Amino acid sequence: MVGKLTLALDAMGGDAGAPMVVEGAAIAMAEDPDLHIIFYGKEDTVRPLVDAYAALSGKVEIIHTDDVVLAEDRPSHAVRRGRNSSMGMAVRAVCDGTAQVAVSAGNTGALMALAKILLRMIPGIDRPALASLFPTLQGESVMLDLGANVECSEENLVQFALMGAAFARTVLGLERPRVALLNIGSEDLKGNETVKNAGAMLRGTTLPMEFVGFTEGDAIGMGGNDVIVTDGFTGNVALKTAEGTANLISEMLSRAFRASPFSMLGYFLIRKGLKSLETHLDSNNHNGAVFLGLNGLVVKSHGGASAGGFATAIRHAVDMARHDLTNLIAEDLKNFERHSDEPDQDEPAAEAENTAAGVPQ
Amino acid sequence: MVGKLTLALDAMGGDAGAPMVVEGAAIAMAEDPDLHIIFYGKEDTVRPLVDAYAALSGKVEIIHTDDVVLAEDRPSHAVRRGRNSSMGMAVRAVCDGTAQVAVSAGNTGALMALAKILLRMIPGIDRPALASLFPTLQGESVMLDLGANVECSEENLVQFALMGAAFARTVLGLERPRVALLNIGSEDLKGNETVKNAGAMLRGTTLPMEFVGFTEGDAIGMGGNDVIVTDGFTGNVALKTAEGTANLISEMLSRAFRASPFSMLGYFLIRKGLKSLETHLDSNNHNGAVFLGLNGLVVKSHGGASAGGFATAIRHAVDMARHDLTNLIAEDLKNFERHSDEPDQDEPAAEAENTAAGVPQ
Repeated sequence: MVGKLTLALDAMGGDAGAPMVVEGAAIAMAEDPDLHIIFYGKEDTVRPLVDAYAALSGKVEIIHTDDVVLAEDRPSHAVRRGRNSSMGMAVRAVCDGTAQVAVSAGNTGALMALAKILLRMIPGIDRPALASLFPTLQGESVMLDLGANVECSEENLVQFALMGAAFARTVLGLERPRVALLNIGSEDLKGNETVKNAGAMLRGTTLPMEFVGFTEGDAIGMGGNDVIVTDGFTGNVALKTAEGTANLISEMLSRAFRASPFSMLGYFLIRKGLKSLETHLDSNNHNGAVFLGLNGLVVKSHGGASAGGFATAIRHAVDMARHDLTNLIAEDLKNFERHSDEPDQDEPAAEAENTAAGVPQ
Repeated sequence: MVGKLTLALDAMGGDAGAPMVVEGAAIAMAEDPDLHIIFYGKEDTVRPLVDAYAALSGKVEIIHTDDVVLAEDRPSHAVRRGRNSSMGMAVRAVCDGTAQVAVSAGNTGALMALAKILLRMIPGIDRPALASLFPTLQGESVMLDLGANVECSEENLVQFALMGAAFARTVLGLERPRVALLNIGSEDLKGNETVKNAGAMLRGTTLPMEFVGFTEGDAIGMGGNDVIVTDGFTGNVALKTAEGTANLISEMLSRAFRASPFSMLGYFLIRKGLKSLETHLDSNNHNGAVFLGLNGLVVKSHGGASAGGFATAIRHAVDMARHDLTNLIAEDLKNFERHSDEPDQDEPAAEAENTAAGVPQ
């Protein structure tokens, strides 16, 4: 799918609301004039904002909605009452084929619930996962699940691996992404049964990915793996712990810089290098979590994103839609299931090798 | 317990082995001459090292052991064959009352298995937990479990909270440590059933701690809580992710500093502030994980610790032994159980309030 692409944007989501969303759209559209954008939101708020940008004026649609999903609304409330909200209408646009992808910076739980109930799962996927990019020493990696599922089975993890690899192929442009399962040791014996069984199911996969086995929390930031797969509880804690540690160090650094006139001069001399570090770690440059596994694409921008951050989320959304990520996942799933049904010829040999290498217990 | 205290040190553990252990002991003993130290290890290796330090020479015992637990040994192997190793003998010294606490920088899994089988659990504690201090913006906090238990029940988490609070009272010297459960949201509704049930069990505790409810990964580094309670899988991932993020930023900073002559000069001007940041984040200054819940104290030093780091582990071990942490935990457990058996008078009132405040679903 190249050329014309329609995006449904929830104009009312995010801490900064419509001004941020419209400015973000203007940035994205200036770069990619082939986009067609539909804003869902309060027309009297959105119209004057749109008219202020030459890149948008006269080139986008605004569909008026009275309702807005609030940050404090429960997912169940959004599902019952939010279908005509700006968020609900944006998701419904993907559902009925009006748009190829929806983007919202609103309430995550509500967006997830609406997307799940309106779009439903790709056949063969049991649960959707929330995936996002994050900065590493080597660039960017994908991690999933980030909190959509607090408890996961081994089948869920295998499906996440498959979906994460498809995401890395489209958004990171990798042919054979390296996929790892997050664990508390890199040896096959470590971890809980779920992770060990998922590892066994992924070993020897013929899908376009390289399954590298287990990885640990301290390796995430090094970027040696392109896709990190874990359950939603662990993934959420890991991502937030990384953010918290970065904030801790940044606060301590800024105290160190302010400590004396010498250190202030020192800061002045290295500020260019620090700026590029800051840019790399800034979540606005990796913005846009996606719900993978649904019959349609929905991207969640960070609620506190800047207009530039929202534009990044739009770019990811466009990448996924142009590569038809939904069908890519469905295809991979079929291939994986076909392969899993075949008897595995390597099994007995691998077992013999393990026994030979094992020390007597 | 004040005054004379006997420590059993595994002289052969750690990446750097006996020279690091003996130097660490010399640092600790120079500060605290009331300590009595027994080294377990190969006498011909340890003796000349001991003789090189005035603080130790003629003042410590060396008990010769032929066997050593290796870094790659499985826990089951250590349990069957490691009882006469330097590590096994150090733990046995605690077991038979020869020493009040054992310290080893050796194989964590082996030490855990030996400690568990030789010392056994405090009655009422189902599983031991691995606890450690880590640096925050406000100083230090305790986190547990860090990997001893990959799967935990709500009762396990409650016991960890109680043990972590007792640890914070002894090692951090806090009267009423703030204890939080790690979760993926701070609202009562978020998270898995285990965490929610553990929260319900801890609310309204009369133990000397303040249970503050749920906390998230990004709050760990801020230091608002003194004790962070989680299962061993999540705790291990969180701690390692924090380490990995710190390493990532440190590597990127050092690249920024080397970028140009200006930035190198800048680095020179702020190096004092950076040094104090580095000191605060250096794991050697927070070294010493402890297995809580056993009938005796065993401290695990980081395998890669410096002599200074090993001395920190000894200091924590001494604190715990002087405060008789094992009995403190046993007492708290009795008080908690006594309180839990009483009917809770506040329950109906609290329930009515929840209903009144709840929006219709």
